[in-house]
Amino acid sequence: MLDLAFRPDPAAADPVYRQLAGYLAALIEAERLRPGERVPPTRDLAEALGLSRNTVSRAYDSLATDGLLGGHVGRGTFVQPRARRPAADAGAERPGFAWQALLSQRARALRLPALPAPAREGVRFDFRPGQVDGAALPIAELQGAWQRALGRELRERANECDPLGHPPLRAAIARALAARGVAARAEDVLVTAGAQQGLDLVARALVDPGDLVAVEQPGYFGAALAFAGCGAALIGVGVDAEGLRVDELARVLRSRRVKLAYVTPAAQLPTGVALSQARREALLELADREQVPLLEDDYDAELRLEAPATPALKALDRGDRVVYLGTFSKALFPGLRLGYVVAARPLRAQLALARLAAGFQPSLVDQLAVAELLAGDALGRHVRRVRKRLAERARAMREALAEAMPPGTRAAPPAGGSAVWVELPAGIDPTALAAAAAARGIAYGPGEAFRLAPDAPPAVHLSFAAASPEVIREGVAELGALVARQLAARRPARRRA
Amino acid sequence: MLDLAFRPDPAAADPVYRQLAGYLAALIEAERLRPGERVPPTRDLAEALGLSRNTVSRAYDSLATDGLLGGHVGRGTFVQPRARRPAADAGAERPGFAWQALLSQRARALRLPALPAPAREGVRFDFRPGQVDGAALPIAELQGAWQRALGRELRERANECDPLGHPPLRAAIARALAARGVAARAEDVLVTAGAQQGLDLVARALVDPGDLVAVEQPGYFGAALAFAGCGAALIGVGVDAEGLRVDELARVLRSRRVKLAYVTPAAQLPTGVALSQARREALLELADREQVPLLEDDYDAELRLEAPATPALKALDRGDRVVYLGTFSKALFPGLRLGYVVAARPLRAQLALARLAAGFQPSLVDQLAVAELLAGDALGRHVRRVRKRLAERARAMREALAEAMPPGTRAAPPAGGSAVWVELPAGIDPTALAAAAAARGIAYGPGEAFRLAPDAPPAVHLSFAAASPEVIREGVAELGALVARQLAARRPARRRA
Repeated sequence: MLDLAFRPDPAAADPVYRQLAGYLAALIEAERLRPGERVPPTRDLAEALGLSRNTVSRAYDSLATDGLLGGHVGRGTFVQPRARRPAADAGAERPGFAWQALLSQRARALRLPALPAPAREGVRFDFRPGQVDGAALPIAELQGAWQRALGRELRERANECDPLGHPPLRAAIARALAARGVAARAEDVLVTAGAQQGLDLVARALVDPGDLVAVEQPGYFGAALAFAGCGAALIGVGVDAEGLRVDELARVLRSRRVKLAYVTPAAQLPTGVALSQARREALLELADREQVPLLEDDYDAELRLEAPATPALKALDRGDRVVYLGTFSKALFPGLRLGYVVAARPLRAQLALARLAAGFQPSLVDQLAVAELLAGDALGRHVRRVRKRLAERARAMREALAEAMPPGTRAAPPAGGSAVWVELPAGIDPTALAAAAAARGIAYGPGEAFRLAPDAPPAVHLSFAAASPEVIREGVAELGALVARQLAARRPARRRA
Repeated sequence: MLDLAFRPDPAAADPVYRQLAGYLAALIEAERLRPGERVPPTRDLAEALGLSRNTVSRAYDSLATDGLLGGHVGRGTFVQPRARRPAADAGAERPGFAWQALLSQRARALRLPALPAPAREGVRFDFRPGQVDGAALPIAELQGAWQRALGRELRERANECDPLGHPPLRAAIARALAARGVAARAEDVLVTAGAQQGLDLVARALVDPGDLVAVEQPGYFGAALAFAGCGAALIGVGVDAEGLRVDELARVLRSRRVKLAYVTPAAQLPTGVALSQARREALLELADREQVPLLEDDYDAELRLEAPATPALKALDRGDRVVYLGTFSKALFPGLRLGYVVAARPLRAQLALARLAAGFQPSLVDQLAVAELLAGDALGRHVRRVRKRLAERARAMREALAEAMPPGTRAAPPAGGSAVWVELPAGIDPTALAAAAAARGIAYGPGEAFRLAPDAPPAVHLSFAAASPEVIREGVAELGALVARQLAARRPARRRA
């Protein structure tokens, strides 16, 4: 028989039969009592729970009224199949507690970015942001690294928690950073549960509710979400063909106190533009003069590990005013929540303390395993393969866009990253386009997700990381046709007007 | 002249002269005002900034008092050489950026709990909190589960991010919760990066800076850290032989607005006391009447999976005012950062959103692997073995304490958990005891780490999870001898007085 943990609450406003009915309803909802299952006879249940038989009968009657139980004469009482039950009210919560009224100010202010739904069904052309090619993952190498991590080392380290992260991993990250021109020691590195935790920790350490944080416009929605999650007010600074408009940031700083400026110098997210050398120097000087820390998100660093591209902004930073952020999400996969922060000591100590408060440490097994991977050349080999593939896909994307998109479309070749920012002809309705695209199985990052203000010019962000050249050609052709169709539908309307 | 970016904040609590002094101190710390450099005459600076001369004079005076500025009659005011300034604290960073001055209010308020150092060297008797027995981990089963997780499933799911957590893992957790009397569906469960992230997310969703959170006293330092990390002010509520003093909490709630009350009903952390049935009912009624959510930390739940102990407080909760928190840290190991929250729907949606902001999701590989483990009986078998071991070690601990500790010591047998809370005879100096114990290789949780106020009666928290019965007997004997020695040394001193 059912092992019932029900205990009546004599102090409750509800009579005992209703408490029992609520308890059983929850068991049915959780399918611990399954459709078609027989519930105990009222007499047996009453005895088991020390209740009167009448109480149990009333509870069963009330559940029958609600469509949860059904009886068969002579056979007992059974849980009704789901199909016969009344539909639960989608928005309504069980009554009892005014949760909405209890939410914190910053919780209320938080909004989900306008990204496409994560459902994979029906997606034929997947250009959504932040993806990698799962099929290209070096599974055997990963299994080997995790296998070794879970051996003797785990037995010894199961209780360990270094607030900065697993020391060999920090040392390996510090070594790898040399390729970005960043001189860091292991003790300068804080391993984070993904770059997103890095953003959150920096915001926690520096931002009080209401403080201003400057972000690029268009810019990365994840950063905006992290800052808003700490109660920050965001102020957008424009981006042009040389990257962040440092003159515009300087104008902002003359009149307003900004606690932090967030930048993606290597390949601006989402436009893919590299910050020019002159702007880099101006930005560092500005940060010094106005005492505004810079948060550099070098999200694309690992795919550049072997390309002698422009060094990181941090490489020019001799005053320790740049906080540097990296991630393993691109070189491996986004579900692996490992990233890192390089920060000056007083800030780093605060980041480590904030991280203890927020969750002690990132997954120890993942840390041990990635340290194993970095000890050999497995990750390097994988990155070289991925870079080759990405170059091919970038080319396919460029050609497909040139061929398929109507005049008035602008898509600058990105300096890095694995996506292209496509500015659409004026007058395109992004909501209608997204709906038409979704109906044809095309998923992408809508431009609005990268904007603070809703009235920006229409744009789409097309990642080519997880799409083969064929998928790119076909998907972009279909998308271009949709854009052209929308334009065509608008023109006669205008003439008539 | 100095290009001053200072702008007074009229809304700040600090008077303008103090704001200016703080700003100049930051410039001096960053060496943008260098030792020996002359600062502008008060009249000039007042004019440049549009402030009264008096304000600037008061700022200079305050900096002179702090040793940062010095005057020379007839020559003006100068930045003092570093050597003459009061010693900067040990954490001081290379000059360049005034990080300390930029930290957020809640970052400044955060203090590391007074726990023993994590270094393993020289620890002969390890009774530190939050540990498991690494040697007992089912390595082969873990390797198998992670191996399977890293196979085909990873290729398919590498880009997935369910904001509530990996669905099969949520379903498995919901099923397991039945053993605690908690009726939950998969969609009621939010997988967190350890229980600590659960604490943080609940605090983010409910607590604004300055809000009050009620915690048990003594209580769990990790919870205090999470709440403080969100800017909460903590108010302690006493604990006795029946657990949390609900009457005391009721008194607090009559006069103050509390946003959240944190409780550990199964085995109060650190005392090990179970919350009595009468108190449970009174607590739920109080929460309802005062509309104060309860956060139940059932940290010990998994080791109880097969023991029909008292159900969780959540099992009695028909009004959805209990937020339920669990963890895999005890059944597996603390380095595995996986836990879960069961919460009412409006709160759960906020928790998921806050988690996106804070780091998207817990490690996907760990989630896939633990779902694999829960699909079979591997975890159940391991937990049964651990429970048997813990019972044996609890017995050894009880006997060792009875034998070794001097009269005046109180150590109630814990209702659960894997540690015992030992109240030491009055007059013991906890700092001296910890130093003497560390010198002999004895590491434990100092009572102060579990206290908000520093003047609490002396106590130690002895975990027996990672110590064999032999280690327990020998270590407790040595600790008892140290306590006895300290008492003996005090007594003649008293007589002389």
